[in-house]
Amino acid sequence: MKMLGIDLGGTKVAMGIVDENGNILKRQTIDTKTEEGFNAVVERIAKTANEITKSEKVEMIGIGSPGSIDHKKGIVRFSPNFPGWIDVPLGPEISSKTGMKVVVENDANAFAVGEKWFGVAKGYTNVLGITLGTGVGGGIICDDHVFRGSTGIGGELGHVIVEPNGYLCGCGNHGCLETIASATGISRLAKEWKERYPDTSIKEFSAKAVLDAAKKGDPLGIKVFERVTEALGIAIGAFVHIFNPQIIVIGGGVSRSGKFLLDGVEKKTHENVMKSFWGTYKIVLSNLVDDAGIYGAASMCFEELRNDKANTR
Amino acid sequence: MKMLGIDLGGTKVAMGIVDENGNILKRQTIDTKTEEGFNAVVERIAKTANEITKSEKVEMIGIGSPGSIDHKKGIVRFSPNFPGWIDVPLGPEISSKTGMKVVVENDANAFAVGEKWFGVAKGYTNVLGITLGTGVGGGIICDDHVFRGSTGIGGELGHVIVEPNGYLCGCGNHGCLETIASATGISRLAKEWKERYPDTSIKEFSAKAVLDAAKKGDPLGIKVFERVTEALGIAIGAFVHIFNPQIIVIGGGVSRSGKFLLDGVEKKTHENVMKSFWGTYKIVLSNLVDDAGIYGAASMCFEELRNDKANTR
Repeated sequence: MKMLGIDLGGTKVAMGIVDENGNILKRQTIDTKTEEGFNAVVERIAKTANEITKSEKVEMIGIGSPGSIDHKKGIVRFSPNFPGWIDVPLGPEISSKTGMKVVVENDANAFAVGEKWFGVAKGYTNVLGITLGTGVGGGIICDDHVFRGSTGIGGELGHVIVEPNGYLCGCGNHGCLETIASATGISRLAKEWKERYPDTSIKEFSAKAVLDAAKKGDPLGIKVFERVTEALGIAIGAFVHIFNPQIIVIGGGVSRSGKFLLDGVEKKTHENVMKSFWGTYKIVLSNLVDDAGIYGAASMCFEELRNDKANTR
Repeated sequence: MKMLGIDLGGTKVAMGIVDENGNILKRQTIDTKTEEGFNAVVERIAKTANEITKSEKVEMIGIGSPGSIDHKKGIVRFSPNFPGWIDVPLGPEISSKTGMKVVVENDANAFAVGEKWFGVAKGYTNVLGITLGTGVGGGIICDDHVFRGSTGIGGELGHVIVEPNGYLCGCGNHGCLETIASATGISRLAKEWKERYPDTSIKEFSAKAVLDAAKKGDPLGIKVFERVTEALGIAIGAFVHIFNPQIIVIGGGVSRSGKFLLDGVEKKTHENVMKSFWGTYKIVLSNLVDDAGIYGAASMCFEELRNDKANTR
């Protein structure tokens, strides 16, 4: 069985045909061109989806989108990356233009499900996925089901407050995890502190450059690294106490900093978790890397099919 | 149909026969006498349970106990209120001594379920229960089911960190919600700040006295009240972002401070919740008051029976 996974991003749309063993059989990437508006974007996605599925028959289309998604109706309620997309019927439109069933899911939820089907969380029933990218996203799998909350917008793990009265967040709160542990947050911290560390080797203040410098012992890098891992430790500690998960998977661009970041997060999380939870969870890095978005989107189709089967049994 | 609800506390054991309409038909309270050890406590509970159920036939016994509970096996893993109770088979023992099926549940989980069956959360499927007592407990109902996590010890809402590097908590962390918003925490804050407020009218530093004074405009009371509601606002804000609940029920002794406390918590929570969640939740005070423990324990039986029926359908 094959599914088409579509990773809808603010600048690029990546799609791939994924089989149940996790092979990507065919792939295509196009520009999103959000400035052309919803209809043009939908038209372009559907056209590419039709082309790519001509020679490889797929059962269903899965779309992972940033923002607040009405999963049941396939509607994007709003998304910071797509100005003007308010309650747009993404799923129904793509479905009518391709003739296929379409599932739409928040990209962080899709990430967690992708890791369960094809990644490091395979075989686990209680999974937390945390994506550290431009923002911080969260996906929750409880007892083998995606947890979305009563109106479908739960799981906003990036907007847990870890520094009360901290930085203003895009969401209007102060001190959310996202203000510190996102790529944007890491970059900002380094820029703000740079005058205090004239000897720093950091030239270009991307999150990757800052964390790489920390790894090599750069004092500014280490200063930022400590604050970022502390914030993650407080938040993940809370998630452990709340969800009692088996596995926490960290993905997104910032996760490319690898074992150095993971070690720091593990240490700080441990410091923030009470003894009765020690040994109940593990923290790992996503191994799906650049294709996590395609895998996540495709996995939503496999998940949907499985749930359909369970319900009609 | 009638159930026996047993509210197991550190000093008292309250039990009551509850019917499905929420009437308490018969009740009895005995001393726990933990110092006599597990076997003696179990013996005394079973004896009273047998006496009270002689004239009123009940289907099942529910026990709400503080601490970490293995719900499936009916085992108390450990409980701060019962020193020495490590992995004790509370459920099986009471069952063998009464000849009845027994369900054991963490008291905060039982509280949330009790509110769903008999209290202010009736008819809701996504409920958060928060108990503000000696400690701070949490019970989570997701999509009409109690959420316990992968090893059954999730839902520790009182141990979310709201003041990083704050007070040392009994759990070993610093700055947990429990350090501020429990009766113990409120009392401590008032005592620590009293020298700064020589004009305070507070004489006796119980949580109730402190919050009552705040209500009357006492400056020390208000100072404490602000910090407590701020902590609750940060934590409940996080829970809203994570769980997207329909209703949050606040219970426990501190909740007796009533509407004044509720108004403060509502205000501070609103300040910590992003716009897309506005209007998706409400915060209410428990209306089961002193019998919340009995109702909670009994409701676990009704819940168990309902799930059994659903599974055998």
